[in-house]
Amino acid sequence: MRIALRIGIRCVLFAALLTAFTAAAQTDPLPSWNDTATKKGIVTFVEKLTKQGSPDFVPPPERIATFDNDGTLWTEQPMYSQLFFALDRVKALAPKHPEWKSKEPFASLLKGDVKKALAGGEKAIAEIVMVTHAGMTTDQFEQIVKDWIATAKHPKFKRPYTECVYQPMLELLAYLRANDFKTFIVSGGGIEFMRPWTEKVYGIPPEQVVGSSIETKYEMRDGKPVLIRLPKIDFIDDKAGKPVGINSHIGRRPIAAFGNSDGDRQMLEWTQAGGGARLMMLVHHDDAEREFDYGAKSKIGTFSDALAAEAGKQGWVVISMKSDWKRIFPFE
Amino acid sequence: MRIALRIGIRCVLFAALLTAFTAAAQTDPLPSWNDTATKKGIVTFVEKLTKQGSPDFVPPPERIATFDNDGTLWTEQPMYSQLFFALDRVKALAPKHPEWKSKEPFASLLKGDVKKALAGGEKAIAEIVMVTHAGMTTDQFEQIVKDWIATAKHPKFKRPYTECVYQPMLELLAYLRANDFKTFIVSGGGIEFMRPWTEKVYGIPPEQVVGSSIETKYEMRDGKPVLIRLPKIDFIDDKAGKPVGINSHIGRRPIAAFGNSDGDRQMLEWTQAGGGARLMMLVHHDDAEREFDYGAKSKIGTFSDALAAEAGKQGWVVISMKSDWKRIFPFE
Repeated sequence: MRIALRIGIRCVLFAALLTAFTAAAQTDPLPSWNDTATKKGIVTFVEKLTKQGSPDFVPPPERIATFDNDGTLWTEQPMYSQLFFALDRVKALAPKHPEWKSKEPFASLLKGDVKKALAGGEKAIAEIVMVTHAGMTTDQFEQIVKDWIATAKHPKFKRPYTECVYQPMLELLAYLRANDFKTFIVSGGGIEFMRPWTEKVYGIPPEQVVGSSIETKYEMRDGKPVLIRLPKIDFIDDKAGKPVGINSHIGRRPIAAFGNSDGDRQMLEWTQAGGGARLMMLVHHDDAEREFDYGAKSKIGTFSDALAAEAGKQGWVVISMKSDWKRIFPFE
Repeated sequence: MRIALRIGIRCVLFAALLTAFTAAAQTDPLPSWNDTATKKGIVTFVEKLTKQGSPDFVPPPERIATFDNDGTLWTEQPMYSQLFFALDRVKALAPKHPEWKSKEPFASLLKGDVKKALAGGEKAIAEIVMVTHAGMTTDQFEQIVKDWIATAKHPKFKRPYTECVYQPMLELLAYLRANDFKTFIVSGGGIEFMRPWTEKVYGIPPEQVVGSSIETKYEMRDGKPVLIRLPKIDFIDDKAGKPVGINSHIGRRPIAAFGNSDGDRQMLEWTQAGGGARLMMLVHHDDAEREFDYGAKSKIGTFSDALAAEAGKQGWVVISMKSDWKRIFPFE
């Protein structure tokens, strides 16, 4: 055993050497972020939380970070991708529904007049969502989403939606996970619309996706159990629904939360109210050249003046896409 | 670098030697299970799933195992622990509710006549649950549960409920996790009643607990955001609700599921229907001496003759507490 012991000691020394060497050669975990106060704020936060003995130290199981999806992790303009999905589904289903030719909002939609179709407001959207998202099994819906996301392309960037994701946020997700954070999506989007691709695109598994949902019903069909998607809203994971969804699915309070619009305000409030070191951030879309510039002017992903004022008051960090991000998309 | 390389090679050899040595000395991961076909079935299942190149190999992210709680992980007789909790809460709250003295089911309860109180059936239970589980914030309820579970004792075993857990199942949970399974609770019990202690007792974090729930509402109280627990059922995670809860919270199908009663039947069906190698097991309470012997005779945790027949037909393994378990509780 004496030789084994000697080799063992050398191994420990060698490992120490290797660690030191690796640390020195360590690359920037957030290369697509400019060296601004925003980036520094993230790194400082993570370092103080993860440093043993630090007054802000948080044990790994409590390192929960939540991310909105639309406008925070991927682009949401000119329209939520899920709405593009619904419109494509209406077109695909139209041959089986001749009555849609004379029935709004479908008639306008099929004529390509999206604006007129959506003029019916929430009721019109709900009708479109229900015929496109309900009436099939969960397995069937998953396959429909997978097929669509594999082929559909963003109208401006001419690339699959799953490539229109923000490179700096992908790096942030990876950086947090490397520091033992568990990363969750908490989105107003459909939970079953996101789960088929979030693991591949963001490294976020289905069980860490929280979203809006419709009811499902368990039943036997031809001797096989299925979950049928019913045309009935179960839960809207937006605004005051976000803390409810977080509590229901995660059961603990995040210590970091990332959003981009008025729909995320309550998630940030809830995160901040937990006490201790917390990080709340809002992505601000102010880059017309590389992505979009909307903010308070948009009907979706609205970053209202009230939200901006609240961010200032509460110390929430506003990420400027224009000045904080060196690169927007992975394909650039 | 030549010396570093030589030491490096020695390190690899040393590590290999150490691994071989450790493997030889490896202890039985399921020491509280008798060497029966049941135990062998578990080990065979785990080995074929985790062996690279095996036709049954399942990648770690898909290794999802779900466990019922009452009667599967801890004792559920003579009454669900959550009902003991509710009764204790009624007593604690009684001074603030003088009207309960003449109002059922509270009047009987306060006189110690649980049987008469529960004679009102589901309506009586719902009334008791609502006054004891709703009307406070989620943080307050968490503290109430923590305080109760720290002091309350099981009437037969005279120990905290969290000690009346099944040692063989604790070993099974640890064994599965050591093989990269993610272990979830999927219980008819209240999700917020379980989360405050499942991490400590079972190693299952709050985000991996699925259960029944009441609605919560986000609001500001004295400038602080809170989630108020409302006296309204949100979801019953039992029977056909279990696959619904699994789909909602986990978003993928388990490859192993463990239950003990008719309430778990659909969870096992859903698990089995996923195709590929699956493991479905039911704990059978047939040990009057060391725990309880109930099965088809009990009002709670019923293991009906129909379930037994289905288990036989489907190849679900029935765990006999009497013959498969060497030890029942950690305190034995």
